[in-house]
Amino acid sequence: MIAEDQESGAAAGAVPHVVIVGAGFGGLYAAKALADAPVRVTVVDRRNHHLFQPLLYQVATAVLSPSDIAQPIRSILSGQKNVSVLLGEAREIDLDARAVVLDGERLGYDALVLAAGTSHAYFGHDEWEPFAPGLKSLEDAIEIRRRVLLAFEEAEREKDPVRRKALMTFVVVGGGPTGVELAGAIAEISRFALAEDFDRINPTKARVILLEAADRLLLTFPEKLSKKATAALERLGVEVRFGKPVTEIKPNVVCLGAEEIPAGAILWAAGVKASPLTRSLGAPIDRAGRVLVEKDLSIPGHPEAFVVGDLVSLTDSREKPVPGTAPAAMQEGQWAAANILKSVTGEATLPFHYRDRGNMAIIARGSAVADIKGLRLSGSIAWLAWAIVHVLNLIGYRSRLVVTIHWVWSYLTHQRGARLITNRASPSHTV
Amino acid sequence: MIAEDQESGAAAGAVPHVVIVGAGFGGLYAAKALADAPVRVTVVDRRNHHLFQPLLYQVATAVLSPSDIAQPIRSILSGQKNVSVLLGEAREIDLDARAVVLDGERLGYDALVLAAGTSHAYFGHDEWEPFAPGLKSLEDAIEIRRRVLLAFEEAEREKDPVRRKALMTFVVVGGGPTGVELAGAIAEISRFALAEDFDRINPTKARVILLEAADRLLLTFPEKLSKKATAALERLGVEVRFGKPVTEIKPNVVCLGAEEIPAGAILWAAGVKASPLTRSLGAPIDRAGRVLVEKDLSIPGHPEAFVVGDLVSLTDSREKPVPGTAPAAMQEGQWAAANILKSVTGEATLPFHYRDRGNMAIIARGSAVADIKGLRLSGSIAWLAWAIVHVLNLIGYRSRLVVTIHWVWSYLTHQRGARLITNRASPSHTV
Repeated sequence: MIAEDQESGAAAGAVPHVVIVGAGFGGLYAAKALADAPVRVTVVDRRNHHLFQPLLYQVATAVLSPSDIAQPIRSILSGQKNVSVLLGEAREIDLDARAVVLDGERLGYDALVLAAGTSHAYFGHDEWEPFAPGLKSLEDAIEIRRRVLLAFEEAEREKDPVRRKALMTFVVVGGGPTGVELAGAIAEISRFALAEDFDRINPTKARVILLEAADRLLLTFPEKLSKKATAALERLGVEVRFGKPVTEIKPNVVCLGAEEIPAGAILWAAGVKASPLTRSLGAPIDRAGRVLVEKDLSIPGHPEAFVVGDLVSLTDSREKPVPGTAPAAMQEGQWAAANILKSVTGEATLPFHYRDRGNMAIIARGSAVADIKGLRLSGSIAWLAWAIVHVLNLIGYRSRLVVTIHWVWSYLTHQRGARLITNRASPSHTV
Repeated sequence: MIAEDQESGAAAGAVPHVVIVGAGFGGLYAAKALADAPVRVTVVDRRNHHLFQPLLYQVATAVLSPSDIAQPIRSILSGQKNVSVLLGEAREIDLDARAVVLDGERLGYDALVLAAGTSHAYFGHDEWEPFAPGLKSLEDAIEIRRRVLLAFEEAEREKDPVRRKALMTFVVVGGGPTGVELAGAIAEISRFALAEDFDRINPTKARVILLEAADRLLLTFPEKLSKKATAALERLGVEVRFGKPVTEIKPNVVCLGAEEIPAGAILWAAGVKASPLTRSLGAPIDRAGRVLVEKDLSIPGHPEAFVVGDLVSLTDSREKPVPGTAPAAMQEGQWAAANILKSVTGEATLPFHYRDRGNMAIIARGSAVADIKGLRLSGSIAWLAWAIVHVLNLIGYRSRLVVTIHWVWSYLTHQRGARLITNRASPSHTV
């Protein structure tokens, strides 16, 4: 129970020390794949919980609670005797000295798995962030929920009809899976869950605008499914607009060139950038900061250091570009772990081979699109497939049961169980 | 759907306007009792949700999620046609003009129900609050959860054994029901839920200290049950200390005269004070700021203005002092509503009669004390009674089902489902 000196790597004993930075899908699956292996593992994360990110938009839109989709990293890994978990932020990776630099601590390693993930990218306009939060953490989700619900509350108290209309306008920037989910979910809240609850306003008249600078939604899907998604959103009353990039975001105003859209809440789902850790590596990175790794997922020149998850920029052994998705991160985490064990026994590492099991995006209750090895589904069958895949992949029986209950309840009643405005006592923002 | 002018009371039509300030148990039960009555009702609260406060300590100790015990006020009251809900903070009550002053709005009323509740009292030492948070809101509960869980995480990283021991010491100030619940729950977390999850520290060695300045716990209970509660806490490993008031609180240090107790987290459960609104009334108040109301719950000299819930200081029609509990608040809310309807029809109001249904306090899994009309229960039978009463009183079928699942799961596995550290990205506090 008492601390070993974690400073030293192999020197501490015969057992090699693997440090995993980040306990998202990539890092967690690497740690699990090293269970019972002849290594000791330290997982470092600045949060105490693993987050099931594919359902994060449901926290932002009041269907689920934070604890439904987040689990303490310690309790996930507590059965695994060779793993230690540390709460802390990796500030730098010293590849030459083989050490991860934390606040006030250096963790020496024999092998590294870098799985620190991505954050929002505002394309050089970080000043937009306070006005248009993105969706990456539980705090982000709670903030988005707060802003959307608060806009309706402020509209109820607003007497000026122009300002009231502005408060009831929601703009989602970016038509990828997260933007589609958020726009669909906000339209559903206003059409159903909130419909009967106000006196002075009619929530079903809320405008939801989804802005995509390209000419279609869900660029990673076949064009036919993009069209289906657009049509499904439009049936819900979402205004989908293509081809005009956002030129500026001010408090409660989105600008598209000369056009200004006043809004009660603006949400950002337009881009991600790699953890700043990759810039300290001295390794080749792409424009988004992702590492151009070797085919075996290692950093060029550092066969003991692997990168997994959204930080990876790679075309795999069959020349397929690997997407930044949860399934790809899980596979990379396991692959990196396998390659580390090969290095330990002196075997050659293997080039990563991505198994593409398909692509899904949810639009609303009973509506999704899925592209599974050429099989293109939409509507309620795609939605059912989405729901099953996501419940089965949640960690922990309790989460699966509780999430299923929330979904069934929400499906039957159109209500939202987590309609809480927290973290600010009083309404504070104005149009 | 479009706003009526809420400025005017009776002038707006024949229907009297009742304004209810606060949607805790008192305010909510007043609003419900006015369903289908010939009045229109406006409920004002600075939060969008009603909170089931008796279970708040379970959010603070990671058993339940915020949304399990909080419901939007709008959705609770959405079936009630004569009620409007406004999110806003009442800044002042103008009894003479019969108006509630909000930010940028005045709400005229014909009858008032003041149910604004209490906050923590630090007995003239408000500077202690940042070092020893109390438990009144969801934000408080999340902050307490964050501090307790973070202390264990910091202890895991701490190399100095003295500082490590300090981080693993938890001090709860105040031996009323909240203090007893918190101390018991923290002892349980450390003995069971966290026991296996750390490498460098042994969470079962955590010290939990409960400080009570008087000579026994749970002063509102019979002495025999106080002793049972003390014994039950001591069996869990809690150090219960009597008779020494806290003289100072500094960051992570509690002082009892010359004795200093370094701690990883300090929680305050030692006292409450009335909402500052009561001081603006010009009505007689007691030392804690509670209103010395007439027997019918009205403010002296203002028969149209009623006070309910924790803001009331009263001995009832049978000369029994009315406690500041949830059941008393519910009864007062209903009573005030009935008296308002009597005034409307010109009948005389009735003096409040408190029906005492008993008193319960929970200590830990399978352990509680209850005093039900002289029947004194302790141990698992009291605990079962406590669980049933609390589940049945939760608002909403979904909450009842989900809370029951969480409890059964927690009871069987000793685990905590909501062990999340949120609102701060990284560890930040130090001993």
